[in-house]
Amino acid sequence: MGVMAAVGALPAGAGSLPPLPTLGVPGVPELKPLTRYEAMRLGPGWSHSCHAMLYAPNPGMLFGRIPLRYAVLMQMRFDGLLGFPGGFVDRRYWSLEDGLNRVLGLGLGCVRLTEADYLCSHLTDGPHRVVAHLYARQLTLEELHTIEISAVHSRDHGLEVMGMVRVPLYTQKDRMGGLPNFLANSFVGTAKFQLLFALKILNMVPEEKLAEAVAATQKPKKPAIDHAAVAAAKQANELAAAARAGNEYADSGENQAAAHAAAERAEQQAAGLESQAVLEHLAAVPGAEAVVAELHAQPGADTVLEQPVAEAME
Amino acid sequence: MGVMAAVGALPAGAGSLPPLPTLGVPGVPELKPLTRYEAMRLGPGWSHSCHAMLYAPNPGMLFGRIPLRYAVLMQMRFDGLLGFPGGFVDRRYWSLEDGLNRVLGLGLGCVRLTEADYLCSHLTDGPHRVVAHLYARQLTLEELHTIEISAVHSRDHGLEVMGMVRVPLYTQKDRMGGLPNFLANSFVGTAKFQLLFALKILNMVPEEKLAEAVAATQKPKKPAIDHAAVAAAKQANELAAAARAGNEYADSGENQAAAHAAAERAEQQAAGLESQAVLEHLAAVPGAEAVVAELHAQPGADTVLEQPVAEAME
Repeated sequence: MGVMAAVGALPAGAGSLPPLPTLGVPGVPELKPLTRYEAMRLGPGWSHSCHAMLYAPNPGMLFGRIPLRYAVLMQMRFDGLLGFPGGFVDRRYWSLEDGLNRVLGLGLGCVRLTEADYLCSHLTDGPHRVVAHLYARQLTLEELHTIEISAVHSRDHGLEVMGMVRVPLYTQKDRMGGLPNFLANSFVGTAKFQLLFALKILNMVPEEKLAEAVAATQKPKKPAIDHAAVAAAKQANELAAAARAGNEYADSGENQAAAHAAAERAEQQAAGLESQAVLEHLAAVPGAEAVVAELHAQPGADTVLEQPVAEAME
Repeated sequence: MGVMAAVGALPAGAGSLPPLPTLGVPGVPELKPLTRYEAMRLGPGWSHSCHAMLYAPNPGMLFGRIPLRYAVLMQMRFDGLLGFPGGFVDRRYWSLEDGLNRVLGLGLGCVRLTEADYLCSHLTDGPHRVVAHLYARQLTLEELHTIEISAVHSRDHGLEVMGMVRVPLYTQKDRMGGLPNFLANSFVGTAKFQLLFALKILNMVPEEKLAEAVAATQKPKKPAIDHAAVAAAKQANELAAAARAGNEYADSGENQAAAHAAAERAEQQAAGLESQAVLEHLAAVPGAEAVVAELHAQPGADTVLEQPVAEAME
C-alpha cells in the first residue's frame, strides 16, 4: 500500500522517546498529541484531517514600530469560521500529503507540501474519531503574497473560501489589539489549538505571550468602542490644528510612517487602547505630517519615536 | 465652508418626518439613529467616523444549492477585529465623503463614494462622543472582485489590513454555519451593528433571519468539532467505496459541483451540522464523482438534489 509507505521508517526505541509536547496554555483544552507513527496505526474507524500553516518571516513594522515577525495565513471559510487551508484525507486512497495537496490545490495552487513539512498530530475530542494532522511550511514573504494573490483569483474564492487573512502575532499596548482579539474570533474544529501549538513549537510567539493572549480573551469584554482611540484622535487633531499647515496632503510613504508614529505616540498619551482610529483620524487630517516633521526637528524627537518599540510586545 | 456644503438642503418640515428606523434585533444594543442633518449639526466636540459597505449581487450558489445572494466586503484589521473599510474624518478639513474616500484610497483604490451612497448615522455609546456614518455602494460582482484583488496588492495589505473577507449571508441547516458563526467573530466599534442595520435596511437579509442569526450566537457554544460532518464524511466514503470507481480524480468543475451536492446530501442524512469537512473529505475521495453520476442517472435524483435549496435558508 502506498499509504503505508508514507509512514516512513519506524522510530527506533520508540519507548524511550521524550514525551510529546503539549500546548500547555491555560484555558485551552489540551488535545492528546500522538506521533505520526501512532496516528498512522489508527484503525479504519478514524478520520484523518490534514491542514497547513503557511508562514513567512516578515521584517515589516506596523505603524513603523510594532514588529510583525511573521505573516501566517488562515482563511475565512464559507461557514463564517476561521481555519487553515486543508481538509479530510481518505487514507485508503491517498497518503496524507497527497490528499492535503489535492485539497490545497483547490484554493492555493502553487504549494506542494511533503512529509518534511509535517508538524504534529492530535486526537480531537468528541464522539467522532478524528485525528488532526498539521503541516507547516515556511515560505518567503513574496511566496506567501503570491499565494494570497492566487487565492483571490481562485475559483473557490467567494464560495468555500471567503478570503485569506494574516494572523496578527503581536499584542498592542491595550493588551487586546492583535493576537488576543484574533483569538477571540470563531474557529473551526481544532484550528485554534493548532494555531497556538504551531506558534509555540515553531518559536514564533513565546509561550507566555500565547498564554497572555488567551487569558485576555477570557476576561469580560469591554465596550466595543474605540474610547481611548477617540481621545487620542482628538489630541492628534489638536496637534495638527496647532501646526496650521496647508490643506495639501503629501502622500509619501515617509510622511505616512511619520504620521503613524505620531498617531501611536498620541495613543500612548491617551488611555492607550486601539490605535486604528487614531491612524485613520490622522490620515484624514491635513497638516499632521507637518506636526511630525516639527517633532522630528526637535532634539530628542527620534528617541521618543523609538521608545514605543520596546513596549509594543506586552 | 466646504464641509457645510456637504450637508445638503435642509429637510422641509423635519418635525413631521417618519421616525428613523431602528435595528430592532434582540440581543444587539440599539444605537441612537440620527439624520444626516442632525449629525452635521453636532458640535465640534463630536468625532465623525465614516465607513463603507461595498456589496454586489451574487448569483452564485454554495455547493450548488445555497444562494449566496450578495457578496459583502469586510476586512480583518491589524488589531484582529473585523470592520468595514473607513475611518475617522476631521470635519474641519474634509467633507464626510472626501475624508472617507481618502481613507478608502489607502486600501481600495478605485471606488469613490458620494453623498448618494450615504446610508445612516448613529451615535455610539460610551464616554466619547462619536457619530458613526455608514455608506453603502452596490457594485457589480466583477467590480467587487477587482477591489478584492486591488486590496491584496495594496501597500497596507499585511499592515493595517490583514485581508478582505466576504460576509456569508446565508444560514446553513445546522443554524450556525454562515451568518451566525460570522456574527460570533470579534468586530470593532459599531461595525457589527452597522452590518446588521445595512443588511436589514437594504433588504439583503430578512429581519427575522438577522434576529435568528444573532440569537444563535448567544446560545452556549457547542464543541468546536465537526461531529456531524465527520459522520457524513464517513457515510460519503462508504458510498464512494461502494461505487468502486477507479483511483483517477477527474477535476472538472461539473464533477466538483456534483460532488459538492453529494456531500451536502450526505450531510442532510447525518445529524446536519457543518459541511466543509464533508466537502473536503469527498474532494479527497476518488470515485465520489462516479457515485454522484450514478445518482444522477437514477429517476428522481435531480429532484433530490434540488430539495435542499428551499431548506438552505433557515
